[in-house]
Amino acid sequence: MALVSYKNIAFLFFCSLLIRHSLSTLAHSKKLDEKKPCKRFVVYYHDILFNGTNAANATSATVANHTKLGNFNHGMLVVFDDPITKDHHLLSPPVARAQGFYFYDMKSTYNAWFSYTLVFNSTQYKGTINVMGADLMGEETRDLSVVGGTGDFFLARGIVTIRTDVAQGDYYFRLEMDVKLYECY
Amino acid sequence: MALVSYKNIAFLFFCSLLIRHSLSTLAHSKKLDEKKPCKRFVVYYHDILFNGTNAANATSATVANHTKLGNFNHGMLVVFDDPITKDHHLLSPPVARAQGFYFYDMKSTYNAWFSYTLVFNSTQYKGTINVMGADLMGEETRDLSVVGGTGDFFLARGIVTIRTDVAQGDYYFRLEMDVKLYECY
Amino acid sequence: MALVSYKNIAFLFFCSLLIRHSLSTLAHSKKLDEKKPCKRFVVYYHDILFNGTNAANATSATVANHTKLGNFNHGMLVVFDDPITKDHHLLSPPVARAQGFYFYDMKSTYNAWFSYTLVFNSTQYKGTINVMGADLMGEETRDLSVVGGTGDFFLARGIVTIRTDVAQGDYYFRLEMDVKLYECY
Repeated sequence: MALVSYKNIAFLFFCSLLIRHSLSTLAHSKKLDEKKPCKRFVVYYHDILFNGTNAANATSATVANHTKLGNFNHGMLVVFDDPITKDHHLLSPPVARAQGFYFYDMKSTYNAWFSYTLVFNSTQYKGTINVMGADLMGEETRDLSVVGGTGDFFLARGIVTIRTDVAQGDYYFRLEMDVKLYECY
Repeated sequence: MALVSYKNIAFLFFCSLLIRHSLSTLAHSKKLDEKKPCKRFVVYYHDILFNGTNAANATSATVANHTKLGNFNHGMLVVFDDPITKDHHLLSPPVARAQGFYFYDMKSTYNAWFSYTLVFNSTQYKGTINVMGADLMGEETRDLSVVGGTGDFFLARGIVTIRTDVAQGDYYFRLEMDVKLYECY
Repeated sequence: MALVSYKNIAFLFFCSLLIRHSLSTLAHSKKLDEKKPCKRFVVYYHDILFNGTNAANATSATVANHTKLGNFNHGMLVVFDDPITKDHHLLSPPVARAQGFYFYDMKSTYNAWFSYTLVFNSTQYKGTINVMGADLMGEETRDLSVVGGTGDFFLARGIVTIRTDVAQGDYYFRLEMDVKLYECY
């Protein structure tokens, strides 16, 4: 009996080592799989830029004009409170708002940078998702980072893959936003 | 003896499965509880906007004027280096600085967006806390995201719940900031 | 035999408790060591500010002029798409771009705030690293937060320690960026 107990202690010790090893491995290795978000949904972002006469429809406006560096709107800074819909239609009831800003940042081509909050206040979701990253407009799809969240998205992290769905003249564009969260509490 | 060893091996294997299962569960489920921050404190943020004559007291200034979209300061962008105090008093010795910016973003009501760093350099704390999110001014309290930290707040994540404590004319407002961190290293 | 089985069950139960305890401890305590990043590299950031005549070389430009609060460029906002090199030389082939913005935020001394994306598109790395934080220019080194990443830097978190390497007149400065990531998937 005493012998068994010794063995048991040895086992527990061994087990404990195993656990510690697994944990330290975990802390520094792949615990999240890019292909397995814990929450995922696709929404559409509509940006209607104020042009001086469309105040009734506009949801964004230029805060700082483009600089003279290149011919691709470098430095043009836009602040928005844009509707987010579940389908492509601008006039569908918004499921959220996107509040934040973007600016163009290259002298040799169109390229942008985004930082914004998705604000949900519906029966389905209450809370916010905070996003930032480069909008590499030359790519078909671009990945932004979900860097935090609140409410139903408490401490969210993840990726928003955006794709330009429609770019209509200078004053309207629509982005498809594929929101993938990897930490769901 | 050999028999016991076999059993032991079987156990270890079983143990190992158990560990793996616990870990994979952990990776995708509730490991953090919104009500149990590992660090929490309440501080006060004082914003004194420069109006052309108050340079001695002002700690923020308008970098871009509001646009003509609506009547609620849409697009007005303010850069600040504001004192953070432990109590309500503007003139209490600051325990930190808040450095960053906010802008108003709605055409139909006052609504803002914040991104800033809390900079601590005292005997109690050295380090920074990085924050961003929508300031939904229509709500009594609003949650911003702590998206990172340095020094004593190394890799912090969490929530800053803000509440407008005082809004005095156009040039002074005070926010209560309830800082809740959920990852403390 | 039955007796052994009971013991085994007791063990498993004990093991399981041990695991749960380790995990809950893990969730709220030091699992990451500031001195042991899972990925680390040093790169150089070159900012050449547009002065009206250097469009061929410039990679950044002032979007909003400084305010009149103090004499240290308070509120001056710069948008950049700057080359990132592996060594000190501006003309070395860039290994990445840094796209984002900085602004000065103090009235009593030079002090800045950064938010940007490191964009990698080489054979070595494809993906982005998103960074934000206070650039406390009075300090020899300053820590910014890595708040997210995409592609090869999927969900990255960490620290970018910056150091002013060269500040040449008003139109060129170089930062050393020591990038340390603590979550590598």
